[in-house]
Amino acid sequence: MAGSATRRSQVTRLVVVGGGAAGMSAATAARRTDPALDVTVFEAGDHVAYGMCGIPYYLGGVVDRAERLLAYPPDEFLARGIELRLGTPVTGIEANHVRTAAGEMVGFDALVLAAGAEPVVPRLPGLDDPRVFTVRALADAIRMRELLDAGVRRALVVGAGYVGLEAAEALVERGAETTVVEALPQVLSTVDDPVAELVAGELRRHVRLLPGRRLGGIQPHADRLTAVIGDEHGEERLDVDLVVVAVGIRPATALLAAADRLPSGELLVDDHMRTSVPDVFAAGDCVAHHHRVLGRPAPMPLGPAANKTGRVAGMVAAGGDASFPGVVGTAAVKVFELHVARTGLSLTEAHAAGIAAVATDAQSRSRAKYYPGSEPLFVRLVHEPGGRLLGAQMAGRDGVAKRIDVVATALYAGLGIADLTRLDLSYAPPFAPVYDPVAVAAQRGGKRGR
Amino acid sequence: MAGSATRRSQVTRLVVVGGGAAGMSAATAARRTDPALDVTVFEAGDHVAYGMCGIPYYLGGVVDRAERLLAYPPDEFLARGIELRLGTPVTGIEANHVRTAAGEMVGFDALVLAAGAEPVVPRLPGLDDPRVFTVRALADAIRMRELLDAGVRRALVVGAGYVGLEAAEALVERGAETTVVEALPQVLSTVDDPVAELVAGELRRHVRLLPGRRLGGIQPHADRLTAVIGDEHGEERLDVDLVVVAVGIRPATALLAAADRLPSGELLVDDHMRTSVPDVFAAGDCVAHHHRVLGRPAPMPLGPAANKTGRVAGMVAAGGDASFPGVVGTAAVKVFELHVARTGLSLTEAHAAGIAAVATDAQSRSRAKYYPGSEPLFVRLVHEPGGRLLGAQMAGRDGVAKRIDVVATALYAGLGIADLTRLDLSYAPPFAPVYDPVAVAAQRGGKRGR
Repeated sequence: MAGSATRRSQVTRLVVVGGGAAGMSAATAARRTDPALDVTVFEAGDHVAYGMCGIPYYLGGVVDRAERLLAYPPDEFLARGIELRLGTPVTGIEANHVRTAAGEMVGFDALVLAAGAEPVVPRLPGLDDPRVFTVRALADAIRMRELLDAGVRRALVVGAGYVGLEAAEALVERGAETTVVEALPQVLSTVDDPVAELVAGELRRHVRLLPGRRLGGIQPHADRLTAVIGDEHGEERLDVDLVVVAVGIRPATALLAAADRLPSGELLVDDHMRTSVPDVFAAGDCVAHHHRVLGRPAPMPLGPAANKTGRVAGMVAAGGDASFPGVVGTAAVKVFELHVARTGLSLTEAHAAGIAAVATDAQSRSRAKYYPGSEPLFVRLVHEPGGRLLGAQMAGRDGVAKRIDVVATALYAGLGIADLTRLDLSYAPPFAPVYDPVAVAAQRGGKRGR
Repeated sequence: MAGSATRRSQVTRLVVVGGGAAGMSAATAARRTDPALDVTVFEAGDHVAYGMCGIPYYLGGVVDRAERLLAYPPDEFLARGIELRLGTPVTGIEANHVRTAAGEMVGFDALVLAAGAEPVVPRLPGLDDPRVFTVRALADAIRMRELLDAGVRRALVVGAGYVGLEAAEALVERGAETTVVEALPQVLSTVDDPVAELVAGELRRHVRLLPGRRLGGIQPHADRLTAVIGDEHGEERLDVDLVVVAVGIRPATALLAAADRLPSGELLVDDHMRTSVPDVFAAGDCVAHHHRVLGRPAPMPLGPAANKTGRVAGMVAAGGDASFPGVVGTAAVKVFELHVARTGLSLTEAHAAGIAAVATDAQSRSRAKYYPGSEPLFVRLVHEPGGRLLGAQMAGRDGVAKRIDVVATALYAGLGIADLTRLDLSYAPPFAPVYDPVAVAAQRGGKRGR
């Protein structure tokens, strides 16, 4: 893969660009690996190491104060000997030094680029209004929460991916009458349509869901925003007080124009997180992760990989030994009362990758049928007819997220469908049926291969 | 291993002894494999296919009616062409026929022994009183529930294993002032002492716990039972209305005296569930299961293995092809609000097996720390210093049972401690911290091997 194969000489100055999960993990791991290392983190914003995935819960009021999202207070990093340069955007990376927006030049022996990703905001009229938000920066979240605390009666969410759905839940929890617009006919494109239909059903209990519609623009008024929402048949106008744009993110990799990357922009790195540029590592949402099921790098901008790749980049940059094994594509999301999880490839993804995959669906229960709280649990296994396991999706109100981890572990280990029927999974009536839903689905899927 | 290697001739008459999970699974699987097969199930009691693990919840009132514990109504089996002989104990198995208590002789081409296990009742005075119960037979449970419905003020549970703890919870839920006596100094001997201490702590919030004490006997009175409870320093007398004896079980294998078995009595079978007696299969709690971590047969009288071995025995007896891969020792139990799970070997078990194992403990959380419902989660990994994974234990109030399955899957696949740090486990704030507790413990354990 990409990456310099030469051994770097002794590193004494490490610069980290980006103070998110990846950057702060890199800085911390580097100092731990080499306590004599001079480590400086440049962060364009005013906060470091905050739990970005917690922002919807802060917006919704489930988390009371923004400070609770900080993994560690900034002082903690100072105490660890890490220099934090908040509010200091890096505007250029040149041979062994970075340039800040203010024109300062700071040298490095090794650099970790952990600039993350930026929310995509379509070039449409009115989206620069201060009542239009993306969900990523903590500063924006604090501003949006102030608006919500003051009272928001009607809200629009544009995009029904993970962030859009979590934002919609937050808005509903704050009492806003919420509309969700999604350009695609299906919500949550990371799962196949049977699961997406369950999600859409849950959404419709709480919001007005408009799939297959596009935002045409926003007309700002003093007391409201008028959103123009269209499909092939025409358009409708919707008055709201607040708009959340959650149509996707793009990796923030413009600073490293010379580095090898995917067409979608994510940097290619080796398993030590080295980019193709000497002395420059990268981690987090700005890199492509080795996808173990696909067997090639793929975008997977999720928290666990950001933390882990940051740690690996920091350790290796500081002269230590570490590697990142890649991902299998595991993710979970709560959509109101519905829990949804996926791992590996969806059927759509498998087909897009040219794999002759099939899907086996099973409706089971989360606990013994007679035990209170036992909920229907939908399991889809994606596999080759011959039994090679490719992925799984689950949806239900109980026992979903950690159950997907059985399949995630199986994918890591290269187990097949038949193995899933042979696992010794935990059983007690309050926690599972005697045949776990994963085994039930695998049993059914295994029969197709015979 | 044990078991006949010769191919059996065509089977037309299958007899199943025992109508529990294993026996009814065997009967059902056999008929599905060969719909022309003549299948007769002999059951000494009056109920078949009931969820034995649900009995404590029926006693406690969480499950309202005993019928809800039936996996299927008896008619369902009749409709499947299975002959049910309830209230018909089998008293002898001879060459190709069984003898019933009434002296009837019934021939078979193949037999599945699924007689389960019997609760051990110490030979002590007074234990034959009708207010002294074991927790296994549904008929006993129905009788005990009647007593509980009429009102039980004070109860004693003898034995602090899975069944004793679940029974204690049921009694407390029914308002009984409950004492738990355990002869060993530690409760729940299937886990190591740090987890047992958490269990004991939870128990003490609800019951009077007397570890290291033995029941000496029961003195029955018209209006109460006086239990004599002793230790090396003396004895105490305790007046109660009801006693539950849950000091263990022994496999019901006396019918097959000629078959190879463990010293503790469990029958040895091959992976097709063949005993060493020709044409005789066995399944469920009366057999020893291949323990994949120990690499040898071991008692593991739990529901999932009973169902699965029954199914395998029935399929193979009917001429089909199936095998049971064995167990890794996974179990879960709810003790009041504490959830406890284990898989593989405990440290005690590993040492008993002569393995130079160590334990790595980590205190983590079940969800993102800022998310409501996030609970402390204790994880113990048992492993060799070199990284070979041997087992795990977990305890907490949230996210325990299905999290142990990650380690159960890893054990099945032969993964090591280092692999556990490299898994791509699900993350979202409502379901897990960004570093899952399993990974946190594995990270710590992996460092010990370096």
